[in-house]
Amino acid sequence: MNKNVTIVGAGLVGSLLSIYLAKKGYTVNIFERRPDMRKTTMSAGKSINLALSDRGWRGLEGVGIADEIRKIGIPMYGRFIHNRDGSTAYQPYGRDDQANYSVSRADINMKLMDLAEQQPNVKIHFNERCTNIDKQKLNASFENHESKKITETKSDLLFGSDGAFSAVRLNMQLQNDRFEYNQHYIDCGYKELIIPPGENGTFLLEKNALHIFPRGSFMMIALPNPDGNFTCTLFLPFEGEKSFATLKTKEQVKKFFDEEFPTAVPLMPTLLEDFFNNPTSSLVTVKCFPWTFDEKIALIGDAAHAIVPFYGQGMNCGFEDCVVLNNLIEKHNENWSAIMKEYQELRKPDADAIADLAISNFIEMRDKTADPIFLLQKKIEAKFSKKYPDKWIPLYSMVTYMPEIRYSKALSEGTKQQAIMDKIMSRADIENVWDSAEIENEILKHL
Amino acid sequence: MNKNVTIVGAGLVGSLLSIYLAKKGYTVNIFERRPDMRKTTMSAGKSINLALSDRGWRGLEGVGIADEIRKIGIPMYGRFIHNRDGSTAYQPYGRDDQANYSVSRADINMKLMDLAEQQPNVKIHFNERCTNIDKQKLNASFENHESKKITETKSDLLFGSDGAFSAVRLNMQLQNDRFEYNQHYIDCGYKELIIPPGENGTFLLEKNALHIFPRGSFMMIALPNPDGNFTCTLFLPFEGEKSFATLKTKEQVKKFFDEEFPTAVPLMPTLLEDFFNNPTSSLVTVKCFPWTFDEKIALIGDAAHAIVPFYGQGMNCGFEDCVVLNNLIEKHNENWSAIMKEYQELRKPDADAIADLAISNFIEMRDKTADPIFLLQKKIEAKFSKKYPDKWIPLYSMVTYMPEIRYSKALSEGTKQQAIMDKIMSRADIENVWDSAEIENEILKHL
Repeated sequence: MNKNVTIVGAGLVGSLLSIYLAKKGYTVNIFERRPDMRKTTMSAGKSINLALSDRGWRGLEGVGIADEIRKIGIPMYGRFIHNRDGSTAYQPYGRDDQANYSVSRADINMKLMDLAEQQPNVKIHFNERCTNIDKQKLNASFENHESKKITETKSDLLFGSDGAFSAVRLNMQLQNDRFEYNQHYIDCGYKELIIPPGENGTFLLEKNALHIFPRGSFMMIALPNPDGNFTCTLFLPFEGEKSFATLKTKEQVKKFFDEEFPTAVPLMPTLLEDFFNNPTSSLVTVKCFPWTFDEKIALIGDAAHAIVPFYGQGMNCGFEDCVVLNNLIEKHNENWSAIMKEYQELRKPDADAIADLAISNFIEMRDKTADPIFLLQKKIEAKFSKKYPDKWIPLYSMVTYMPEIRYSKALSEGTKQQAIMDKIMSRADIENVWDSAEIENEILKHL
Repeated sequence: MNKNVTIVGAGLVGSLLSIYLAKKGYTVNIFERRPDMRKTTMSAGKSINLALSDRGWRGLEGVGIADEIRKIGIPMYGRFIHNRDGSTAYQPYGRDDQANYSVSRADINMKLMDLAEQQPNVKIHFNERCTNIDKQKLNASFENHESKKITETKSDLLFGSDGAFSAVRLNMQLQNDRFEYNQHYIDCGYKELIIPPGENGTFLLEKNALHIFPRGSFMMIALPNPDGNFTCTLFLPFEGEKSFATLKTKEQVKKFFDEEFPTAVPLMPTLLEDFFNNPTSSLVTVKCFPWTFDEKIALIGDAAHAIVPFYGQGMNCGFEDCVVLNNLIEKHNENWSAIMKEYQELRKPDADAIADLAISNFIEMRDKTADPIFLLQKKIEAKFSKKYPDKWIPLYSMVTYMPEIRYSKALSEGTKQQAIMDKIMSRADIENVWDSAEIENEILKHL
């Protein structure tokens, strides 16, 4: 076959995918709706920081840029909990050498674009909005944002890596009978805020941690940036007593923050400006199937499986899609019929699993990280896991640090573990005996 | 306010809605994608017969055409079960005076269009495909199928009654943040077949019944038409051992029907032609929310809630939407802000309920209608309900014959009843004692 590929979307996943394909000898044209972000300033206020972990690293290592990115990331070794009363707690993510890296979406994306364009057989076309995909002819049409000129391309393969609101997916939804599709918004929205650096660029919160201000039905998080500031994100219900709907005036916002985040407010001098200048955004989960069409068109990344950000796995999962696809190209020796088939069969259950895990982690972060019983459970699990590392790997570690374990497997193992811990934690005397051999033996018995 | 209304879609619900609105003094323009079905022949082979029941009748009575439709319908008083071995069974739907009417979709639709056009303030525009809705300006654009001319309309209210694949809904999906949307296809497809009349137009099966040939994972049904033929519909999995995928040759189809429907085959002289000429169609459930936008645009009928056909409630539910809306117009004295709000809040749980009931009725029809234990349960329920009509109304009767009970209420009552019957039927001796006072008392105790 010829090896001309069209990729719709030069985001994180589209850019990385183009490099993998170029290295396999494919000629790749990427069409990106937005202007070149390396030349224009990003629209601010919608950039939940990314937490790069092992699945993502594997994707970057495959194209040789992991080390370069590691230099601009900040390792976060655990969650730093800030309670309303000012007390704090620290929960390590895993072993001492295991960290999530706080990285800027723009930085990674620009690096990936640079690397893509260094490939002689990759070209990125900017300001090109996908207006139509003709599935039969494998024609894609794009309208240039500036010239309004329509470009039609024909290729041998087409990938839709154009995000949660994918135009490619929409075209497939409209052209394919029996297309399963679900988009679901959680009741919470989010807003980006900032904690600027202190004097001389010092970090005003612990640098190497992800900060959580858990408040039950809502929370604020803060992730470090290299220049000393923290990107804060407030996750809050759209409606209800404590919600975006009830924060309409400066007085309301000030009162809310003073009451709920008294220790953060002194660190947020531009709080009110930021609150009213930055948009309130929504959080969607998208599930669909199939992901491939006529063995020539495929969805990848958020276009196939948009998830909420609470497990920090959106980008990591998309990068893993590229790794899986790359492995299948080798396994099936470029037989795209076999590649496409296995790609969607393999990845769909994993994407569904991480989507569900991401929803439940929202509840864990905003609610349970402040719950002493939950913290005790995590302590018991950590102790047991340390003693019996072959018998018990914490769910969070499987998802975040063990790419060799599929998301779907991690979810099913995690469900089993939770059932065991439910039994253990239901003991009335658990707070007294948690550290005992009896508890250890009981876990062993259930395993 | 001005009273100009645009309706997209002149199907069953759009046509009926236009009459209700016209009678309230609104000026209505309906734009219909297809040509005028009164002037052209229908595309054959995709017309699952409709079963009109009390919610639907109420909709027609409201505009005074129930009697006219009743004349062209055939009452079906129960299910006539045809087992593989040739044995049959009859299960009445409800009381002797309760029936579902087998009616032709085209007949009702044409009558409704006639009646709509008799209103001086309703105009139907055919061959007009909706290409865009501008939510802000309340502009709708239509492209004429023949002239390719684009018409733009501006109105005070806009209704999308354009079916399961609604263009209005798609536009709202794309223009509204936080639009919940789910489309799900069941694994079964369907194909229309026919049992023609016998000599002198005689009915070759019992005329006043809905015929079911239940076969576990699949089934065929047959509904009577006034000219003596029966519209048969085969519901069969797309994939698997017994499926459309394995019925590719005339030999395969003949063998399958001879084995599975030996008593029907002699009545189906054009079986093989019909099987290969008629399309295999899919069955979708669509759930979405909101149904109204800026208090000026509303989805109605299948556009808001497409359901599978197994409870015979698709049209009935859509007609009930019109009745509900009409009542709300009166209740809120044409305050559309209040009407739109209450319309979606009131109808959404009912539409979700009938969608779920329709899915479970598929299992009941194809599988349980041939199960002696299920039939015994129905017999116990019928007996109890006859003796205590105030304490127990069968779920099917609530849904089909009691418009005063909301679908959501029927579903919750039905769920309670099933829990009671699960206990009753779990008795090992139930086949001996089913008719006893003991069982009656046990049901009374649980209620």
